[in-house]
Amino acid sequence: MRNRGPAFVKGHGTQNDFVILPDTGGELELTAERVRALCDRRRGLGADGVLRVIRTGALPDAPADVPADVWFMDYRNADGSIAEMCGNGVRVFARYLVESGLAEPGELLIGTRAGVRPVRTRPDGRVTVQMGQIKFFGESATSVSGVDFAGVAVDVGNPHLACVGDVDLDALDLTGTPPRDTGLFPDGVNIEFVQPLGGDEVRMRVHERGVGETRSCGTGTVAATAAALRAAGEDTGSRVVHVPGGTVEVEITSAGSTLTGPAVLVGGGQLGAEWWQNP
Amino acid sequence: MRNRGPAFVKGHGTQNDFVILPDTGGELELTAERVRALCDRRRGLGADGVLRVIRTGALPDAPADVPADVWFMDYRNADGSIAEMCGNGVRVFARYLVESGLAEPGELLIGTRAGVRPVRTRPDGRVTVQMGQIKFFGESATSVSGVDFAGVAVDVGNPHLACVGDVDLDALDLTGTPPRDTGLFPDGVNIEFVQPLGGDEVRMRVHERGVGETRSCGTGTVAATAAALRAAGEDTGSRVVHVPGGTVEVEITSAGSTLTGPAVLVGGGQLGAEWWQNP
Repeated sequence: MRNRGPAFVKGHGTQNDFVILPDTGGELELTAERVRALCDRRRGLGADGVLRVIRTGALPDAPADVPADVWFMDYRNADGSIAEMCGNGVRVFARYLVESGLAEPGELLIGTRAGVRPVRTRPDGRVTVQMGQIKFFGESATSVSGVDFAGVAVDVGNPHLACVGDVDLDALDLTGTPPRDTGLFPDGVNIEFVQPLGGDEVRMRVHERGVGETRSCGTGTVAATAAALRAAGEDTGSRVVHVPGGTVEVEITSAGSTLTGPAVLVGGGQLGAEWWQNP
Repeated sequence: MRNRGPAFVKGHGTQNDFVILPDTGGELELTAERVRALCDRRRGLGADGVLRVIRTGALPDAPADVPADVWFMDYRNADGSIAEMCGNGVRVFARYLVESGLAEPGELLIGTRAGVRPVRTRPDGRVTVQMGQIKFFGESATSVSGVDFAGVAVDVGNPHLACVGDVDLDALDLTGTPPRDTGLFPDGVNIEFVQPLGGDEVRMRVHERGVGETRSCGTGTVAATAAALRAAGEDTGSRVVHVPGGTVEVEITSAGSTLTGPAVLVGGGQLGAEWWQNP
């Protein structure tokens, strides 16, 4: 197109998808209305969220503990609101930094509103993200499609109820919100249904609070792995987790947890200048 | 991105959205699997369909009556199948030809599997498409949300039942398929609910056969205009038609019908070479 606006790249991590907006000069006027238009799947590019690439020092509301020269993932939800962190988004963000030449492959730091995240990019395109310590905080239950499920409450920065069992995942109807113990989960809960497949593999479906069923949930795969290990009588170890949007690997050690998964860059270019002015 | 694959542009007409693939050299290997991946709204770019831009002479299965040097709209549905024509797509296609410099603005011809379509691009970005002769072929009825609707059967190349009345459009539940007279519409029917707003304006919602409710249907706006004119005792004339995805203008004369509407180019660039090889 002849009149070119800001640059963009579209990418996804296990089908959680994002529009990346490089703003290396810190000059982009990213209004909530523009975020909503970018994420609109018919009148825009379509995505679950926008990841602006900006130097931490150029962002007025960046956390004080993130160094100014670190690339900051300024994450916006599709509704235009600001979000802290996204395990799938940070993988796509890291892959973009390396593919665009803004960072060297290997170990790098990414600034987020939840603090600095160390990540490692791999030659095969996958990215490993440190997800921090997990904590069990009780046992609970829910029910779906007339079947009762027992599970464990897991804190991965956000609350989860991970239910491990030999369940027919395809038979579950997750269109509604499953009941929860409001005493244990006063602010809602993400619920994972986890089926061990033998060896170190599990399959999972997830219902995210406030959203519904999604094709992937990074913190959910960590909670699912913690619960699967616990069900096997183990404190530490790893699992390959198959979600509807793809496959990730989670490792839990005494030092914390890591999530390794794909980060795909679909394509990129320039927004139309006319569209950007009046999306 | 460093490794660049084929070029693309994303655009929409009244929120019926498309990925345009320029293939001026006729060299693109556009498989059904790649079309499905491109149109996938999470692992691809996301669209209702793909519009390949190719010289008619370079397309082996082009209709014999389309001149070889005309730009051909090789239209594919999101499921990878081949489609004949799309009133919204041809506007976006024409806008792309002009913005990319492949055609001069004004009157131009576009090749489609339904034959050559004359179009006119306008300075404000809208495009006028000739939609051919319409034909009434009966009266019929349907019902939605417990309310009965009488309508007229209109042939716009495909079959429509256009129901004009002072109806509360927002109250209609179009999630199911409204009943039809299978004698009059043996192959299904597109159904329009049309509310006159006074003057030459009408509002419309549409249920497309095999799809469900959509945000826009080009032939549906022509059928709605024909029915609204008939209800006002007129054979020819024009209407401004407001659909959920935007606003178009339809004119019906004794010579045929024209549809004028917006064509928006959101942005464009290159697909990732890695993604294109293994989407």
